[in-house]
Amino acid sequence: MSYGKTFEAWRKATGTVWPAYVDHAFVRGLGDGSLPRQAFLHYLRQDYVFLIHFARAWALAVTKSDTVEEMRLAAGTVNALINNEIALHVEICAGAGIGEMELFATEERPENLAYTRYVLDAGHSGDLLDLLAALAPCVMGYGEIGANLAISKTSDAFSDWIDTYSAEPYQQVCRDVGTLIDSVAHRRLGSDPNGSPRWRGLCRRFTTATRLEVGFWDMCLK
Amino acid sequence: MSYGKTFEAWRKATGTVWPAYVDHAFVRGLGDGSLPRQAFLHYLRQDYVFLIHFARAWALAVTKSDTVEEMRLAAGTVNALINNEIALHVEICAGAGIGEMELFATEERPENLAYTRYVLDAGHSGDLLDLLAALAPCVMGYGEIGANLAISKTSDAFSDWIDTYSAEPYQQVCRDVGTLIDSVAHRRLGSDPNGSPRWRGLCRRFTTATRLEVGFWDMCLK
Amino acid sequence: MSYGKTFEAWRKATGTVWPAYVDHAFVRGLGDGSLPRQAFLHYLRQDYVFLIHFARAWALAVTKSDTVEEMRLAAGTVNALINNEIALHVEICAGAGIGEMELFATEERPENLAYTRYVLDAGHSGDLLDLLAALAPCVMGYGEIGANLAISKTSDAFSDWIDTYSAEPYQQVCRDVGTLIDSVAHRRLGSDPNGSPRWRGLCRRFTTATRLEVGFWDMCLK
Amino acid sequence: MSYGKTFEAWRKATGTVWPAYVDHAFVRGLGDGSLPRQAFLHYLRQDYVFLIHFARAWALAVTKSDTVEEMRLAAGTVNALINNEIALHVEICAGAGIGEMELFATEERPENLAYTRYVLDAGHSGDLLDLLAALAPCVMGYGEIGANLAISKTSDAFSDWIDTYSAEPYQQVCRDVGTLIDSVAHRRLGSDPNGSPRWRGLCRRFTTATRLEVGFWDMCLK
Repeated sequence: MSYGKTFEAWRKATGTVWPAYVDHAFVRGLGDGSLPRQAFLHYLRQDYVFLIHFARAWALAVTKSDTVEEMRLAAGTVNALINNEIALHVEICAGAGIGEMELFATEERPENLAYTRYVLDAGHSGDLLDLLAALAPCVMGYGEIGANLAISKTSDAFSDWIDTYSAEPYQQVCRDVGTLIDSVAHRRLGSDPNGSPRWRGLCRRFTTATRLEVGFWDMCLK
Repeated sequence: MSYGKTFEAWRKATGTVWPAYVDHAFVRGLGDGSLPRQAFLHYLRQDYVFLIHFARAWALAVTKSDTVEEMRLAAGTVNALINNEIALHVEICAGAGIGEMELFATEERPENLAYTRYVLDAGHSGDLLDLLAALAPCVMGYGEIGANLAISKTSDAFSDWIDTYSAEPYQQVCRDVGTLIDSVAHRRLGSDPNGSPRWRGLCRRFTTATRLEVGFWDMCLK
Repeated sequence: MSYGKTFEAWRKATGTVWPAYVDHAFVRGLGDGSLPRQAFLHYLRQDYVFLIHFARAWALAVTKSDTVEEMRLAAGTVNALINNEIALHVEICAGAGIGEMELFATEERPENLAYTRYVLDAGHSGDLLDLLAALAPCVMGYGEIGANLAISKTSDAFSDWIDTYSAEPYQQVCRDVGTLIDSVAHRRLGSDPNGSPRWRGLCRRFTTATRLEVGFWDMCLK
Repeated sequence: MSYGKTFEAWRKATGTVWPAYVDHAFVRGLGDGSLPRQAFLHYLRQDYVFLIHFARAWALAVTKSDTVEEMRLAAGTVNALINNEIALHVEICAGAGIGEMELFATEERPENLAYTRYVLDAGHSGDLLDLLAALAPCVMGYGEIGANLAISKTSDAFSDWIDTYSAEPYQQVCRDVGTLIDSVAHRRLGSDPNGSPRWRGLCRRFTTATRLEVGFWDMCLK
């Protein structure tokens, strides 16, 4: 499982923040089945609203692309988010008696709102690379969590969720986004991205977004 | 052929500008086959660049949507533009020995640039409805031109082009966008859109965008 | 003290949220001098970063203005924020041995970040009125708090702060912004704003921003 | 007269486009007094609308700044444009019997619209440096034209205009913007901006904006 050179470097630069995200108590609860069903439904509702705004941020990436290939990949991701990933949430929630209109009306928690609006602002205030640094932790983190849990899980209570993110289609999304990030980094920073004066700022963005992911899990357990 | 109530009202409000667009000499040249092949290739190259930026403007619409349905439709349009409509241009140009990299490198003419950047700014400065008023003339005008030429054409020289825009899939796009506009107008202006203080401004936007379409055809004949 | 018709209606629509903001324990601590100095400095540091992003949101309002008067007022507010209001923070912090570079390097807390990025996104996703509904609670709330505390305070411990917001120049800013909001509401919604289909959404925006203000005070007391 | 290292490099990279702008027939007509008064008033009206949108683009720069100094300079420029530079136009036009409301209602020509919307999109699609590359030709070109004409002019017919742009305050604006560009280039590209993979794209932006300036002068003479 490798999602690209730039992502690896950004992940490493977070220090203890990345592990705090991918090994969060919420994640362990998905793997051993100890997560209360109510917490999972609470998560799904907030995550539904999250995905709406996350899809908006990927659409912003389309408007900030410099090449047709970048546009195609970003536009494909918007579609995957709105039409596939959200479908999982709608389906599971429907099974629990929560309709899509009720999902959409979920009151967005501040921890949720903080994250997506931060990502959107990363795009508006900077360029495509600034935006991608804020988008990456969610995309790739879920890929890593899914792949980890597929191996380590001791319960099938949340296997629908685990299957979605560990399965090939989602892993392919992670690799594609990793390739996109490497290529944009190369195109805007050159052959030695770490040597660019922007490097520290990009690592900071990625770390802040990862920290907001931790805050999101925390909120789901409250 | 009806693309919705709001569109009809906006079209009517342009006075002589709309007819100047849909009955332009360039359009008549497509119908009777008198358009020089060089002018058509010149148009395809500029239109390729146009579609890139027009797709960016539809992606902006995704970021400005208030409901999931709006997002889905806007995201679908981005995809259709990048993956289908552009394909027609790539294919015809390939047949004339012009590759996609050459297409992408086309120097954008000021008349072309003026149009798409105006549409993008309509979105950034206003709300979704302001953006849709600037997007509509291109989407629906091509639908109307395609449908007209399918009936009135006296030559098959440009039947590929005419077929694309007169065929059911594109006509359905026009009807869907018309429905979207009616619904956003209702949601933001209420049951009497013409009575809203924004109405005149929206008609002006639509008319300006239509005028820029006329300028685009003019440029293609230069 | 009246900051305009639209503001009054929005404030009333928040129900108990507005009082939770303007009568917050943090505010009472400013009035009776019981707020620990450390909490006040913590607030000033976070608020410095807040004002940076809040000024960015007012600059966004300049880009979304439809008339020269709106632009002038919004541009004037950007200047007042960057050059005057921030100066108060810089000065008090300097007195406590905290330089501006250190202020600027303050790590932004999630509750802080949530608020300003929400306001910026209100502008990017909507029109000027959507943005103003998210900007209003901070501008006017501080005016109301300042005016209240000037009368009710039982201590002079924080009189610099209270004077800044109760004094005529800041009160004039509140009245000017109130007039701006009334005029934009009239220009975009007509003579019966409450009857507009957008009214509920605007009240919701204002309430969400007010709720984020409450979260900001809470964070300052942690 | 030097407006910074980066500006000098960008100017040189335009080849013949920069001279076509600063030595345009319109400019020569200002210097020798041969420009018809009607053409000058036509210019002032279009330029009034231009400045409105150009000020919006500078406000966008405030929203895209990374440091307080950048914000202060950009915010100061917005103010100078809205409150000083526009005042010259209002005053001269008032002398010719054209009121500000009439000025504001000027129908924007496509060549005018193309320019400002291109600049705004440079900001929205890229980062602050992309935006500055599109803003620079107008700011610095007027400074260079003003300074040149102050020396070479053979008529006093347009000395108000020439004085405005050759005088110290405007020259200082050019130097400040030049310093800003150098500092942003250093902060985002490093110590060898020309060696950055973005360099060619930035030169292209600057050249396109300069070309749109030439189109603006052409339009004024039509």
